[in-house]
Amino acid sequence: MEQQIVSAIRQRAKSHPALVIGIGDDCAITRVTPGKQLVTTTDMLMEGVDFLLASVDPALIGRKSLAVNLSDLAAMSADPVAAVISLALPQRGGAQLASQLYDGILPLAEEFGIAIAGGDTNSWDGPLVISITVWGEVEPGHAWLRDGGRAGDKLLVTGSLGGSIFSRQFTFTPRIKEAQQLRSSAKVTAAMDISDGLLIDLARLCAASNCGAALSLASIPIHADAHTLAAQDLPTASPAELITRALEHALGDGEDFELLLAMDPSDPLANATNNDSQTHMIGRLIEQPGIFAEAADGTLTPLPIRGYEHQFHA
Amino acid sequence: MEQQIVSAIRQRAKSHPALVIGIGDDCAITRVTPGKQLVTTTDMLMEGVDFLLASVDPALIGRKSLAVNLSDLAAMSADPVAAVISLALPQRGGAQLASQLYDGILPLAEEFGIAIAGGDTNSWDGPLVISITVWGEVEPGHAWLRDGGRAGDKLLVTGSLGGSIFSRQFTFTPRIKEAQQLRSSAKVTAAMDISDGLLIDLARLCAASNCGAALSLASIPIHADAHTLAAQDLPTASPAELITRALEHALGDGEDFELLLAMDPSDPLANATNNDSQTHMIGRLIEQPGIFAEAADGTLTPLPIRGYEHQFHA
Repeated sequence: MEQQIVSAIRQRAKSHPALVIGIGDDCAITRVTPGKQLVTTTDMLMEGVDFLLASVDPALIGRKSLAVNLSDLAAMSADPVAAVISLALPQRGGAQLASQLYDGILPLAEEFGIAIAGGDTNSWDGPLVISITVWGEVEPGHAWLRDGGRAGDKLLVTGSLGGSIFSRQFTFTPRIKEAQQLRSSAKVTAAMDISDGLLIDLARLCAASNCGAALSLASIPIHADAHTLAAQDLPTASPAELITRALEHALGDGEDFELLLAMDPSDPLANATNNDSQTHMIGRLIEQPGIFAEAADGTLTPLPIRGYEHQFHA
Repeated sequence: MEQQIVSAIRQRAKSHPALVIGIGDDCAITRVTPGKQLVTTTDMLMEGVDFLLASVDPALIGRKSLAVNLSDLAAMSADPVAAVISLALPQRGGAQLASQLYDGILPLAEEFGIAIAGGDTNSWDGPLVISITVWGEVEPGHAWLRDGGRAGDKLLVTGSLGGSIFSRQFTFTPRIKEAQQLRSSAKVTAAMDISDGLLIDLARLCAASNCGAALSLASIPIHADAHTLAAQDLPTASPAELITRALEHALGDGEDFELLLAMDPSDPLANATNNDSQTHMIGRLIEQPGIFAEAADGTLTPLPIRGYEHQFHA
């Protein structure tokens, strides 16, 4: 049965110019563009933590498992090449579930031109686990790292934030193409994708870059879903309370998978009004450690950091 | 806590000449040797299926999770470079468990000169899952594939088989160095590692190579552990029955992680007596499909295929 599932996946996986040996041998073999460096990322999604199998179309779960990895490649400004996919499938219905997961994985792989190069298909008496490793390529020295930000850099995001829980956590578009455009047009000094929440992820970028950040809260692009979520949270609240709550969702929800970018202040894009592009200027890096809200008069107020982190106890 | 675990791993992971950016950014960046192709493999190990956490030192579980991937690289004759490691850890005790897993992972990584380039550390209310992806390099056209075998090729294994359940399933040495030696000294036409059992894995190599195989059962190297297991299975059996049972373990147990090699019959190694080297000649590829035992008079008897496969039901 395992072999039948693998054969079915093998038949559905497309050929790819980088793929020398795909599914079916001990390893995959892929070509590397001469002069490029390899960029690799891996993410594991677990039933009950990252999704509820009872309430989400498995194709969306499969899609997300690949998309979160592509988002990490976008955050490094890498061009995706290929993926390997490991599954821990429940024994009951596992073969059908595998097929449904690939219903979401394969179209996204095709959209972004990546090869499904291999994987490991397992069954157990346990919840669904999907572990995908994706690799891509970058010119040496051209990757966007977290540690390249400097005080004075402008901070931008590639889209509006908050309320991803409704559907965007599954349907988001990894910002591969936006990264490819920005790479050629803008002086990005540091980048990461927003997975755990704007504030906690910004704090990580700042820690890596050895600086702090001042955010203009009025400039944070709030997604319509964050407003909807705020109205659900606080059905009797005032308009001002609702906006505050929607902003909290934008700052802390996570799973937006937009890119958070630091940009040289001399860059025209960093000074464009937000209406001019898909990117939104939300603040700047500063020397003072910490994450602050910056008022119109320049006053800095510390912001409490919220966001998702896996918890452990002894 | 997640960040603390990742920081601890980061401090323990060694620097490596191929590693440009390691643990701590959205992706890892590694160098690729000019002219080489990339060889990638991934394996997922699950508590209750691949190991019992209650009865095995977690360091051995961590070691095995990496070793099974290195064994796949050896089966392609690839030189290992780096690994990414994803964990689904139980919330209770997960931080300590992660540290113990790395107690087994890191020495093996160092022994084979591979970088720990990154990973994904998660917690949940579920069993331990370890998913490791390893990559390496090969000269274009020089990888050992499963489909290169031809009728007439000799079949060899790199060590004795059976009874891996006692401890070798955890302590085996991936045959990276043996593959590197054989690559320069022998005409290997096809290869794979023995993970699910000699017969089932040989059947896969034969299917890929579009041929069959004739085994000389008297030449199969039976590990001492297989004899011990046979004696446990059949405490009152005759010596002949015990040898038959031990042979069954050698043919079907799996998790030996020795290499199964097809070799051009003109190769001196394929004609050496088994005492001359670490490799053991066990038979030959034939045109007739199927796996057979070949008697001294040349009579072929079909062998039933046994081995491990993940099971699913509807």
